Amino acid sequence: MLLAHGGGGRLMSQLIERVFVPTFANPYLSRQHDGAVVRCGSVRVAFTTDSYVVQPLFFAGGDIGSLAVNGTVNDLAMCGARPQYLSCGLILEEGLELEVVRRVAESMQAAAGRAGVQLVTGDTKVVERGKGDGLFVNTAGIGVVESELDIGPEQIRPGDVVLLSGDVGRHGIAIIAQRESLQFEGTIESDCAPVAEEVLALLAAGIEVHCLRDLTRGGLGSALVELAERAGACVEVCERDIPVREEVRGACEILGLDPLYVANEGRFVAFVPAAQAERALGVLREHAGSAQAAAIGAVTAAGSGRVLMESAVGGQRLVDRLSGEQLPRIC
Amino acid sequence: MLLAHGGGGRLMSQLIERVFVPTFANPYLSRQHDGAVVRCGSVRVAFTTDSYVVQPLFFAGGDIGSLAVNGTVNDLAMCGARPQYLSCGLILEEGLELEVVRRVAESMQAAAGRAGVQLVTGDTKVVERGKGDGLFVNTAGIGVVESELDIGPEQIRPGDVVLLSGDVGRHGIAIIAQRESLQFEGTIESDCAPVAEEVLALLAAGIEVHCLRDLTRGGLGSALVELAERAGACVEVCERDIPVREEVRGACEILGLDPLYVANEGRFVAFVPAAQAERALGVLREHAGSAQAAAIGAVTAAGSGRVLMESAVGGQRLVDRLSGEQLPRIC
Repeated sequence: MLLAHGGGGRLMSQLIERVFVPTFANPYLSRQHDGAVVRCGSVRVAFTTDSYVVQPLFFAGGDIGSLAVNGTVNDLAMCGARPQYLSCGLILEEGLELEVVRRVAESMQAAAGRAGVQLVTGDTKVVERGKGDGLFVNTAGIGVVESELDIGPEQIRPGDVVLLSGDVGRHGIAIIAQRESLQFEGTIESDCAPVAEEVLALLAAGIEVHCLRDLTRGGLGSALVELAERAGACVEVCERDIPVREEVRGACEILGLDPLYVANEGRFVAFVPAAQAERALGVLREHAGSAQAAAIGAVTAAGSGRVLMESAVGGQRLVDRLSGEQLPRIC
Repeated sequence: MLLAHGGGGRLMSQLIERVFVPTFANPYLSRQHDGAVVRCGSVRVAFTTDSYVVQPLFFAGGDIGSLAVNGTVNDLAMCGARPQYLSCGLILEEGLELEVVRRVAESMQAAAGRAGVQLVTGDTKVVERGKGDGLFVNTAGIGVVESELDIGPEQIRPGDVVLLSGDVGRHGIAIIAQRESLQFEGTIESDCAPVAEEVLALLAAGIEVHCLRDLTRGGLGSALVELAERAGACVEVCERDIPVREEVRGACEILGLDPLYVANEGRFVAFVPAAQAERALGVLREHAGSAQAAAIGAVTAAGSGRVLMESAVGGQRLVDRLSGEQLPRIC
């Protein structure tokens, strides 16, 4: 295993495609969505999990606890579900201070309150010194899917407009700044936040959402490539329309990073029919977290599985998957 | 943090009581059952999670993959649910061989097939060499609770009979034998197995099950003490009636371990009304996994929160919680 097998890019994709999908062969996993929508009796329930290994544990705008709650809440939202219940599995390293566990637990509880979910079940394991790294958190989550829509990559259609819920790149830069004790102009805080309200508002407004994807490891670029490949469609986006804060852009230039691949924790893309795109944008902009939502592109042709970007300086380039590992342990 | 904070004994209990229950204050967690039973729309759904850090990854009778599936399946069963869907979160250490990941994934899939559940969603993270220990697995699980019964420690009543589903101590001894390259008389294999069929059979037979608990970290002794304390009842058990295989008893004597506190992964206790105990035993004994089920004691008085054991050599002793860490990283 290389670090890049967990990085959200090409190697991780290969690991999933070559080992997990064939081994765990079932239609839920094969969809490779952010979570699975399963039937529990007569009810459609979304079910998802993520482990969190972010370093440092505490960073500007969040910590491993708020990240673990919001990340799983957002994966449920990407299934069109109302997030309801979360589990919490902790793996602690011997020698970790109890105060750290307490702070993380309190942060999880505060984030759960903000997101309207309850942490209802949990587990704690402790490993020897040197066999872990302070604290790892796993959360799984469930929530009822009230909408009748089937939301997923295979619903993407030519003509769909791609909406982005706000500026990108803050989470990754906040983490690297903390890790390397870098000072950038202004404090760059993680965008770590729950996005379920915005998504449920889209559904309540009758927007026929085709696909949702939150932009975590691998950033906007990797998410778009993955969706285009799964949908077998061509996605064309315009670089100028992708909001990136000045200070994030500056930091990316100094660090030699492309904001297109920098991780986020409170951002998502929505694929919606062109006829509803303006109305959908209006709904998103009513929410503080997505006030800067923008239409960044469209699905232009079926059958090609690639992403083209009209660059800010003119010309079109092919957006590739993230190759290797940009920032390990970002989430 | 000490290793014993994850050991299923006194320190873990204190961590849960003093940090998690007050912080995550909600009625589901306060019950401290093996999982939570929540409402998803009109359906009662059991939801549970466990992380697995067992060393070595592969041992006689199982591996971390089958353990991670059966452990979570069994926690769902302890809620009276039919286990249906599992998530899988992997934390891999850089440098781990892909072949190990593949073997564990295949073992999980085989165990899922045996237990009648599907692995529907997952996540993989990779940490740097020296920041993990090969491979950690988290599984969460959900399943519909079809029974109308409310199953939990607070349902335990004086007069209830305590049924044990089979012999105890095999998992812990199998792990320590593998870890220390010990040879005991005969190979002692882990009892790692799903127990949902047996539990659902009890419910289908109309047994009014009051409480169920699977016997993992801390063994039978810790489970009984925890239940007696939560129920505020006195549980009296008879040492002679607790099945322990000869080779396990021998290994325990050599190692200075009390089989009462050695971990299991395919064993549970059921508290049932005395009038139904014989019939319940009959139902359990029809299943291969619980063919040796036995009545090991009864709930004798309300309000005392302790466990008394009539010892094999005569006399009665108070069963205490496991103090410190008997075998770290047993699951």
